[in-house]
Amino acid sequence: MSNADESAEERLIARYFRPLATVPGALRLADDAAVIAPPPDSDIVVTTDGVIAGVHFFPDDPPGSIARKALRMNLSDLAAKGAKPMGFVISIALPVGTDAAFLAAFAAELGEDAARYGCPLYGGDTDHTPGPLSVSITAFGTVPHGRMVQRSTAKAGDRIIVTGTIGDASLGVKLRRDHGLAKSWRLDEAMSVELERRYLLPKPRNALAEAVLQHATAAMDVSDGLAGDLGKLCRASSVAAEIDVSRVPLSAAARAALAADPALIETVLTGGDDYEIVLTLAPEKFAALRTAAQAVGISVAEIGEVKAGDGARFMHAGKTLAFTQPSYSHF
Amino acid sequence: MSNADESAEERLIARYFRPLATVPGALRLADDAAVIAPPPDSDIVVTTDGVIAGVHFFPDDPPGSIARKALRMNLSDLAAKGAKPMGFVISIALPVGTDAAFLAAFAAELGEDAARYGCPLYGGDTDHTPGPLSVSITAFGTVPHGRMVQRSTAKAGDRIIVTGTIGDASLGVKLRRDHGLAKSWRLDEAMSVELERRYLLPKPRNALAEAVLQHATAAMDVSDGLAGDLGKLCRASSVAAEIDVSRVPLSAAARAALAADPALIETVLTGGDDYEIVLTLAPEKFAALRTAAQAVGISVAEIGEVKAGDGARFMHAGKTLAFTQPSYSHF
Repeated sequence: MSNADESAEERLIARYFRPLATVPGALRLADDAAVIAPPPDSDIVVTTDGVIAGVHFFPDDPPGSIARKALRMNLSDLAAKGAKPMGFVISIALPVGTDAAFLAAFAAELGEDAARYGCPLYGGDTDHTPGPLSVSITAFGTVPHGRMVQRSTAKAGDRIIVTGTIGDASLGVKLRRDHGLAKSWRLDEAMSVELERRYLLPKPRNALAEAVLQHATAAMDVSDGLAGDLGKLCRASSVAAEIDVSRVPLSAAARAALAADPALIETVLTGGDDYEIVLTLAPEKFAALRTAAQAVGISVAEIGEVKAGDGARFMHAGKTLAFTQPSYSHF
Repeated sequence: MSNADESAEERLIARYFRPLATVPGALRLADDAAVIAPPPDSDIVVTTDGVIAGVHFFPDDPPGSIARKALRMNLSDLAAKGAKPMGFVISIALPVGTDAAFLAAFAAELGEDAARYGCPLYGGDTDHTPGPLSVSITAFGTVPHGRMVQRSTAKAGDRIIVTGTIGDASLGVKLRRDHGLAKSWRLDEAMSVELERRYLLPKPRNALAEAVLQHATAAMDVSDGLAGDLGKLCRASSVAAEIDVSRVPLSAAARAALAADPALIETVLTGGDDYEIVLTLAPEKFAALRTAAQAVGISVAEIGEVKAGDGARFMHAGKTLAFTQPSYSHF
């Protein structure tokens, strides 16, 4: 078989992305489409999310981190829905002149994450663009039929739980833009590095997906800020939420920054890019969730309660916090 | 329920795209993900394809045409795989300052095509970009389990069939760039309009998908030029193809242009954006395919034969045509 007639696009796909197409249904990325055989009695959960240079990441971020972030944003959505990752397709718009080293690192780390999270590449689309690098991923997962965990099913009386720590990435992006803040926030070097890392590389909570499926009444991933995202969950469920801000889990670095500048509480609660899960559950289910979370090394914290009414209220020292902009929005 | 706290992004989605989310699994575009219940004994066919302003369409194309083209490119892939459309997700990067009229027209015509082709919106992602408008779509279809029509399964002795007419869009884009060509190609006004329309708005052959599934040994959609795409099919199937160029179906406009400038045969056969289907089948199946195609108003033409060997040869007046670049490629 002669490959001399292959187009440059075919060669690029064959060289960098075919090694990632490890499942038969990807057809070696050499067909118009991929084919997925859904497991019996399952629903397919579909999510799509993308990143654009200068909007969702810094243009000088390492190529492997850009690839991982794009995939992990989608994995985070699957985790919050209680879904098991199944695979993904990727659409990449490359600025003219993108070099081989960039593509090699991008594809290699994308492949590492695909293997780590059990979410293989099924297909893609590559183009050159006169604009910034942009990467759009559509990921698929599975849940037992009828069981996807939604935003709209929280009930008054449920407890509100959040995974991990909140606000690190939004503090990290501020540090990335102005390293001098580390000094005014009285952070040591390790703290600064950790906050910036949280922005660069989300750590989606897929290990907790099965427990979310078992125990949550409603859930979503925290990507646009806890305040705004909880507001969305409340609107979808036609309920209110009351959060005790003193119970929102914070990293040592975030606590240090807040001690130095208490006004950063707004950044922490509204800044976005957390990629944690916020979920609601019946009070008696929390112990089981915590046990499941401990087994996979993920911390969970009860931060408040679902109430009748509307709106998410963040209570701090006896007062309701008022935010300038509760949710990160591109518009 | 108060909506005062909705973000601008939520309002944009609610206003323009929620009306398209007509299926329950789209969850009114108000969740992290959509949910699809696959029909029993079916595989899911997944394809992803996108358009970027200045690369795949002209920046001054009507917004509704941009939306339709993005969806129809993906529908064309589903048709060629013998798949029935099931739904799609869309990722849109909007230049800052994109106005409401643009979004309204974009969404309205996208919705019209979603209804026309039975391919509802399941979800999406909208961002602002400092770059050009870009739209990436991932579409899903269904085929009976194990039956997706692939590129890699053509056999020596099969006949090669193509739908519709070839080369119109690639002539149309030349006209769009230089209207003066209409005169040198001796086209009347209706012919010019038709060629440009073929570039602006693909007409995917989804009505033929069931017949492709029934009769084809292999198939793909013609999007990067017949010569290059047939070359891909030959490489995937480890076969050769011999095409009689005089049998390649041409529109009256393309025939007129070729009569005026015979060198345009390369544009016709390699220029791309046809969104027709090229398929292979056992000789005795052609009559049944033609009957099925007539029933849905699609013309089909036998243009050549699959042979042992490699490479797609285009025979013209007893000679093999040599192309400068057999396939449209962005790289």
